[in-house]
Amino acid sequence: MSVVTLGFSGGLDTTFSVLKLKEAGHDVVAVTVDIGQQMHVDQIRTRAEEAGCLDFVLVDGVADFAEFFIAPAIQANALYQDAYPLATALGRPYIAYCLGHVARSRGTTLLSHGCTGKGNDQARIELGVRALMPEASFINPVRDDGYSRDTELEYLRRHGLVHESDDSFQFSIDDNLWGRSISAGPLEDPNARPPDSAFEITASVQDTPDEAVELDIGFKLGVPTSVDGEELSLVGLIERLNGIAGRHGVGRIDHMEDRIVGLKSREVYEAPAAVVLLQAHKALESLVLTRSAIEFKRGVSHEFARLVYDGMWYTSHW
Amino acid sequence: MSVVTLGFSGGLDTTFSVLKLKEAGHDVVAVTVDIGQQMHVDQIRTRAEEAGCLDFVLVDGVADFAEFFIAPAIQANALYQDAYPLATALGRPYIAYCLGHVARSRGTTLLSHGCTGKGNDQARIELGVRALMPEASFINPVRDDGYSRDTELEYLRRHGLVHESDDSFQFSIDDNLWGRSISAGPLEDPNARPPDSAFEITASVQDTPDEAVELDIGFKLGVPTSVDGEELSLVGLIERLNGIAGRHGVGRIDHMEDRIVGLKSREVYEAPAAVVLLQAHKALESLVLTRSAIEFKRGVSHEFARLVYDGMWYTSHW
Amino acid sequence: MSVVTLGFSGGLDTTFSVLKLKEAGHDVVAVTVDIGQQMHVDQIRTRAEEAGCLDFVLVDGVADFAEFFIAPAIQANALYQDAYPLATALGRPYIAYCLGHVARSRGTTLLSHGCTGKGNDQARIELGVRALMPEASFINPVRDDGYSRDTELEYLRRHGLVHESDDSFQFSIDDNLWGRSISAGPLEDPNARPPDSAFEITASVQDTPDEAVELDIGFKLGVPTSVDGEELSLVGLIERLNGIAGRHGVGRIDHMEDRIVGLKSREVYEAPAAVVLLQAHKALESLVLTRSAIEFKRGVSHEFARLVYDGMWYTSHW
Amino acid sequence: MSVVTLGFSGGLDTTFSVLKLKEAGHDVVAVTVDIGQQMHVDQIRTRAEEAGCLDFVLVDGVADFAEFFIAPAIQANALYQDAYPLATALGRPYIAYCLGHVARSRGTTLLSHGCTGKGNDQARIELGVRALMPEASFINPVRDDGYSRDTELEYLRRHGLVHESDDSFQFSIDDNLWGRSISAGPLEDPNARPPDSAFEITASVQDTPDEAVELDIGFKLGVPTSVDGEELSLVGLIERLNGIAGRHGVGRIDHMEDRIVGLKSREVYEAPAAVVLLQAHKALESLVLTRSAIEFKRGVSHEFARLVYDGMWYTSHW
Repeated sequence: MSVVTLGFSGGLDTTFSVLKLKEAGHDVVAVTVDIGQQMHVDQIRTRAEEAGCLDFVLVDGVADFAEFFIAPAIQANALYQDAYPLATALGRPYIAYCLGHVARSRGTTLLSHGCTGKGNDQARIELGVRALMPEASFINPVRDDGYSRDTELEYLRRHGLVHESDDSFQFSIDDNLWGRSISAGPLEDPNARPPDSAFEITASVQDTPDEAVELDIGFKLGVPTSVDGEELSLVGLIERLNGIAGRHGVGRIDHMEDRIVGLKSREVYEAPAAVVLLQAHKALESLVLTRSAIEFKRGVSHEFARLVYDGMWYTSHW
Repeated sequence: MSVVTLGFSGGLDTTFSVLKLKEAGHDVVAVTVDIGQQMHVDQIRTRAEEAGCLDFVLVDGVADFAEFFIAPAIQANALYQDAYPLATALGRPYIAYCLGHVARSRGTTLLSHGCTGKGNDQARIELGVRALMPEASFINPVRDDGYSRDTELEYLRRHGLVHESDDSFQFSIDDNLWGRSISAGPLEDPNARPPDSAFEITASVQDTPDEAVELDIGFKLGVPTSVDGEELSLVGLIERLNGIAGRHGVGRIDHMEDRIVGLKSREVYEAPAAVVLLQAHKALESLVLTRSAIEFKRGVSHEFARLVYDGMWYTSHW
Repeated sequence: MSVVTLGFSGGLDTTFSVLKLKEAGHDVVAVTVDIGQQMHVDQIRTRAEEAGCLDFVLVDGVADFAEFFIAPAIQANALYQDAYPLATALGRPYIAYCLGHVARSRGTTLLSHGCTGKGNDQARIELGVRALMPEASFINPVRDDGYSRDTELEYLRRHGLVHESDDSFQFSIDDNLWGRSISAGPLEDPNARPPDSAFEITASVQDTPDEAVELDIGFKLGVPTSVDGEELSLVGLIERLNGIAGRHGVGRIDHMEDRIVGLKSREVYEAPAAVVLLQAHKALESLVLTRSAIEFKRGVSHEFARLVYDGMWYTSHW
Repeated sequence: MSVVTLGFSGGLDTTFSVLKLKEAGHDVVAVTVDIGQQMHVDQIRTRAEEAGCLDFVLVDGVADFAEFFIAPAIQANALYQDAYPLATALGRPYIAYCLGHVARSRGTTLLSHGCTGKGNDQARIELGVRALMPEASFINPVRDDGYSRDTELEYLRRHGLVHESDDSFQFSIDDNLWGRSISAGPLEDPNARPPDSAFEITASVQDTPDEAVELDIGFKLGVPTSVDGEELSLVGLIERLNGIAGRHGVGRIDHMEDRIVGLKSREVYEAPAAVVLLQAHKALESLVLTRSAIEFKRGVSHEFARLVYDGMWYTSHW
């Protein structure tokens, strides 16, 4: 009976994975990296326990995520396809790092995650783990056996793991400090306007204040450090802006995206702080860089964003 | 006594130029190209007459401007420095074309415009005219003798050509169907928020409707042709969107811009239709182009925008 | 018993494919497109007959190949990875076009080629055919069953199809009017200097004339049309330059290349006319294009070369 | 009577400048930076003395030039317009640095160089000096008063400063360890083949050995460190390769170049070591970099080369 180190979000796919891994005779060590996701870690821990994990490892990672992943992305003006601030894509290499670390400390090379075969995150997690731990191998019930979301939901309900109120399962959600991505369900039709229920951290126009707000954002070396003169940690500053900008309806992105694997996929994002900070950083650069430096950096930014999107964070490319 | 063909907007610099050209012993043929600017052509004609022009030529150009200049810019996703939809920059080569045409028909090679030496438009007009009429020479009182806006205003007042209500002279304005640019005056301080009086075609947040509006824009071959199923001329469609989007506060741009001559300049723009149509066109491309085509076109778009900005419309480059 | 349309070169892989397709119960229509390869078409026809093809179709394509494939590559300054003039890569989409055409005329949708799974040409041929004939399907004995070159050679010998003198089988060769590519065998070691026996159309330094020769190449619209004042067809001009430049040792290329499938592969090329004409065309452009046009075109050239290399000739990208 | 710090090469323009600066009442401190030019420093010193310089400062700079200027250019694959290895362009910022240093130590802010107004080197030297010494001002007799080469030659002859054998003055020459540039005189006609007398360090085809030579070049961190297993200083290695490759006729470049100021100029270069090392470095990269890293670096290389060419070595751009 072998131990599997599972990246665990508390969501549909990873909860389902615990059940299936156990059925296949594995012990599951669930690893959750707190990078600012909305679901409370106590709730995630409870789900891990209810699903029957052998162990639950929580990495308190939000400050490191901001410093080592978000800050370079701000400096790089990183927007994939001029649209997506890369919240999930930036989180994956950090989660991969933590998964590899836990697997090493438990003496196992067998890992799992809840990613499906059609998506980007399989590539990002597996490339990330293998860059750091070449001997890793992966077992992924959802992908390997091709379960549909409906089948998973039905299965979890039979095991008493979905409550009536769990309508967050209507969409496929991933979120962290840098933004929230919403896909699947009613969004798969590109003609369909996202329902208001898809959004949690940005207000719809009819709910925004009538008065604009003006913020003064201070930067040091390309990283934001203050709002209206008040010095803040990067985590605190992003949380502040997610609140203010989200309330004013800033940060909704509706994007037909080219995935790593060659598919197009309609993705909806909420990223209030990211939208504000990337625009503020570009405005700052327009004051202090030469025209040719701005032109050159545009190309570098897109290459940075492409590499992050494609799961190449640990490439030797840069 | 020689005839000068003057590009005439009815604004401060060109009205002042008429007086100075006449003082220098020239007859002035004023040429106004209607490309959708807000000032009524009757008002422009009256100003030309009051200033003492020998003749006033009006080119009814808005449909041609839309078809031959705006439409390619939409297809190209043209945004200079990711910010400016190039309204004035697209208008200049067309005005240059008309100026050269009138000068030829009048048998003169002496032309004038109201552009100052610090700006982009001197280069755009003169490069445009010379590309089509290499024998052209230019005389420009405002630039050649370095008059300040205050001196010009005072001089016009002495000649009875500025009315008390003329507070449009607070800013330096240029506008056409594709957008309105506002600079100088209180905007020269990059820290200063543009006053509400700077804006004419976009509403401030406090004045926008509480309800969002959803528009369905149809494209053929990369050019918009309908709104909500109603077929419209490109001019009509842009006017429609300038109205709707402007009322909803869409289309304000505040940009620290790198000018052709190497200076940075703070520019404020209103371009509701341009912002909506460029975003809609990119969204359409994200549905139908491959990832590598999107990446490649990004570089082409920036080169197109740079050439237009730099006054190279008639280059053999493309 | 179904008919298979096979792209046939008379070389190892395609001769072997005929035998295996016949063993599998297929009738084979061999299609050879004459695009200037060195092997005489009579020899190719004889091989096709000896191998037992039902029919042999010869497309006399060298003039069309030059006009529709080589000429645009010259205008584009197309060099993959700044090294490879794309001889084989340019030939494949034309061969694909001919294969599809013959298959249609014979009423079959089953096609074959001799490409292995590791190489580029499988992708180029199949992408090309499918772009034109989406209903095509492929059967490829060499790739599908993974035969090694040694096995193939042994098998042909047993069927009396390799003569003692056939040392051209030491390397894997592909050639056409635009160049000759040599790989496999002793070249697989990147440290090994290619043996003189690898080269057929370029002289080694010790065999070149001591005196330089100077040629005056005339271009019209970016396509070469004359040598030393003599008007030539593009085919005749390239043959002339292959002779002269090859005799002077011009046109050997030794390149560690990134293949479509992600492998690196050491490739050796002979392309005397291509090297001369691409350099002459760039020299001409340096006389007549602006600096910014040269810079912009560099990016377009690389994208063109990448698309051709990747088998995307029939993409809607351009 | 003020002191002028003059960048002194011992050539036509700078020798002439000494005379004219003295005529204008200045004392001249001649500064020669040894960066591997062919003219012996004793000969340069003698010329400076004969021309009547107050002082002659020799900077023994060849090792620093190789380490801080040539090595990064190799790592960057720097070729301006895919042709020019930038020998002179790399030397200028180092000379500018030395000029500023000497001027500071002599307590003067008045500097001079022999560059003409049409060329690149005026911009490179002056931008370089001003980046380091913003208070610098320049006086340049050749440029300021527009003397022709013939006038300068005649003037020097009258002062007994040109010997009959001085046919090096037929061309305008600049050279250093990284290459030799030849322009003016018979080269100004782009149709004219450069005469053999233009070349000093590369053999013409009729004079090259009949046998090829094979060299094994070792690199560490992108900088060449050995030839055929023998460790060499970068200076020694470049000198070795200039000898061997030059003898084999490698390194002649004939290029219609776009100068900084917008003119096209026909330039002929000899750069045997540069051509060999840049090709070797790219071949090494083709073995160890990914395809996308190679593509990305191509853009970075061109930007690096453009900045160096344009005299922007001390820009904050990178």
